[in-house]
Amino acid sequence: MQSAIEELEAKGKAAKTASRRMAYLSTEVKNKALDNIAHDLLSKKDEILAANQIDYQQAEASGMNTAMLDRLMLNSSRLDAIAQDVLSVAALPDPVGEVFDMRTLPNGLQISRKRVPLGVIGAIYESRPNVTIDISVLCLKSGNAIILRGGKEAIRSNSALAGVVQEAAIRAGVPEGAVQFIENTDRTLVNHLLKMADIIDLIIPRGGAELIKFVSANASMPVVSGGIGVCHTYVDQSADVAKAVAVAYNAKVQRPTVCNALDTLLVHADIAPRYLPLVAAEWAKAGVAMHCDQRALSILKSSPSLPLVPATDEDWGKEFLSLVAAIKVVDSLDEALEHIERYGSGHSEAILTEEHEAAMRFLNEVDAACVYVNASTRFTDGSQFGLGAEVGISTQKLHARGPLGLKELTSYKWIIFGSGQVRA
Amino acid sequence: MQSAIEELEAKGKAAKTASRRMAYLSTEVKNKALDNIAHDLLSKKDEILAANQIDYQQAEASGMNTAMLDRLMLNSSRLDAIAQDVLSVAALPDPVGEVFDMRTLPNGLQISRKRVPLGVIGAIYESRPNVTIDISVLCLKSGNAIILRGGKEAIRSNSALAGVVQEAAIRAGVPEGAVQFIENTDRTLVNHLLKMADIIDLIIPRGGAELIKFVSANASMPVVSGGIGVCHTYVDQSADVAKAVAVAYNAKVQRPTVCNALDTLLVHADIAPRYLPLVAAEWAKAGVAMHCDQRALSILKSSPSLPLVPATDEDWGKEFLSLVAAIKVVDSLDEALEHIERYGSGHSEAILTEEHEAAMRFLNEVDAACVYVNASTRFTDGSQFGLGAEVGISTQKLHARGPLGLKELTSYKWIIFGSGQVRA
Repeated sequence: MQSAIEELEAKGKAAKTASRRMAYLSTEVKNKALDNIAHDLLSKKDEILAANQIDYQQAEASGMNTAMLDRLMLNSSRLDAIAQDVLSVAALPDPVGEVFDMRTLPNGLQISRKRVPLGVIGAIYESRPNVTIDISVLCLKSGNAIILRGGKEAIRSNSALAGVVQEAAIRAGVPEGAVQFIENTDRTLVNHLLKMADIIDLIIPRGGAELIKFVSANASMPVVSGGIGVCHTYVDQSADVAKAVAVAYNAKVQRPTVCNALDTLLVHADIAPRYLPLVAAEWAKAGVAMHCDQRALSILKSSPSLPLVPATDEDWGKEFLSLVAAIKVVDSLDEALEHIERYGSGHSEAILTEEHEAAMRFLNEVDAACVYVNASTRFTDGSQFGLGAEVGISTQKLHARGPLGLKELTSYKWIIFGSGQVRA
Repeated sequence: MQSAIEELEAKGKAAKTASRRMAYLSTEVKNKALDNIAHDLLSKKDEILAANQIDYQQAEASGMNTAMLDRLMLNSSRLDAIAQDVLSVAALPDPVGEVFDMRTLPNGLQISRKRVPLGVIGAIYESRPNVTIDISVLCLKSGNAIILRGGKEAIRSNSALAGVVQEAAIRAGVPEGAVQFIENTDRTLVNHLLKMADIIDLIIPRGGAELIKFVSANASMPVVSGGIGVCHTYVDQSADVAKAVAVAYNAKVQRPTVCNALDTLLVHADIAPRYLPLVAAEWAKAGVAMHCDQRALSILKSSPSLPLVPATDEDWGKEFLSLVAAIKVVDSLDEALEHIERYGSGHSEAILTEEHEAAMRFLNEVDAACVYVNASTRFTDGSQFGLGAEVGISTQKLHARGPLGLKELTSYKWIIFGSGQVRA
């Protein structure tokens, strides 16, 4: 163990040293690194998929659940999409060096803020190997060094992907040491990593609730956490029924294993008798199990073929990450807002309504990273939002909220130009 | 103790409840509250100064040092200045509700970020009673509720000032409970406060190094810390000697007890023989004790009247907070940069130079909240920077760096308007 800790510290120091040079790296070099990564992801596809295949088979054999297996799985089209996202990030403006809030004070001092990298980012993540690429690419483009620690179950996939990143980056002129990958998946190393506050400027945990809680409780450096999405969609009395069926269907079914998928459907009592049978029929076709409160049950029970279960208290505020939805009938927008305030995780919340006032109240009063009117919560995603990719989705309020893209991986410094000014 | 903890929790809950209404408070009501505070600070001046007088006398009798006594002291002109700062904040634009980064995605979704208050801010501070006003006013204007916990030594002053704020705010229509003041200065309550993560969205410790370290180590909610200023001024070989004397004099002497005052003067060897005798003579007149490295000593020793002391290793990286300066002669800009990287606290650093390239290298390579060319580090201050006032000065990189004004007390949420969009 001692030698593994020494190796970790050496990696940390190398990242720190590289980070100083990363801060001045030209946009050209950074973009070249990203182009190389996108290219190599395709040219080394067989190698990457072979590594992923071994991870997948082992995970399947060890009884990993479907949601986790889906997160772990890479295939040719997923790799194509990842490479495409890398190119999208390369095409985005370089956030570093941007000067903003510039003004001249009455005493002639010219002050402004200049955007700078954070320094060294530590990422601790679980079974989604694409995270290795997303985080590396966003950190490189924003001038940060990175220390990657992925999950044991994806170790071969992550190792192959990190190797691609390191080789491609160095070939472009990125300083060696800028991308560090921890091969050793011993948990003790994570504990040690979380205490390296002199090296790591920000830790990003990306994974399940337990991981995030553990990292937040134990890290000695700042943490940006999130990713737990207990997402509600509220169908207001004024909703367009067809739109509301399509949006709720998409929010639940399109990719149920991720954090921005619908967990609880709240339906206004006035529209429930018309709306619920339609959405339930569509959901049933897709295999969605429905945990219904008493009022929803009494509306739906006339269709005996529906997979209905009476909801229990545990269903409210639960992130299902699977084809399960909780359904509750409410008497008012206020009741929906109260339910969301009590059970939401501050991730993504949506209202379906045709009434302007209801829309505006929902937008103003729901305290969450992303608040939607008449759209699927599935859009909460850095790539969908035009950020190219994301290192995670923050549900905290400090520093950055929602998808974390390039700008969210930077800080700024105040720059003051004088001509001998002194304070009176 | 149990009842004091219950009282603290009740105050926390009241602040949380108030914070929800604070988020929608009109700019008019918030500005009216600030106008009332500025007015009442003047109309109740005698009462406030009488309370401060008792604090001051007790502190003096208990042997408090000069730097701390200066921080504790209020007088008529300081109160005038505080009231003026309150009006400056009232005159600033309301940060809440600002919509930025708005764009329409190819699928027709209209997304933007909307600025919102953080929620409940906790402030733990030491002997400067003006902090009670600065923080309250910035929090009110930015729509945040606030829990104030000031130092024992200033309890009467703080209590009087918090009373002014509470009464003035409620008179303007701010919800009761928005401003909470903890009268009980028992340390146990601080420990409890630091665990109230469900209530407090951000803790700001403002005071000495020990306080900041304690809060950072023990808080379960996010902390923005700073205020430790080990500030260097580097006089480059190309500096204008007269400017450099005036700036270094101001940086050390104008208010030596605060965090942005000069601690270490770094002087290029080529200019030291001309420059050091001039600045030392001025500093000596103001009573500045000089802790000199060998080369500075050998230049200055021909003036036997100067208060010179050989520097020790402890002088580098020390925040003196008094009329003491460390002086070191360096051979190059690189050596100055290395010294600052090693010993600086990331607060405020300055270069005096007439060479553009040296100025730009210093600005780019020094990693600090505020980096100056040809100006006194004493300008690092929310009021001086045009932010109206400050809740503190952050030396961390996350969320906000340097003086924390209104915008730095906000977060944002993503607002997405759709017309039934679903993710493909």
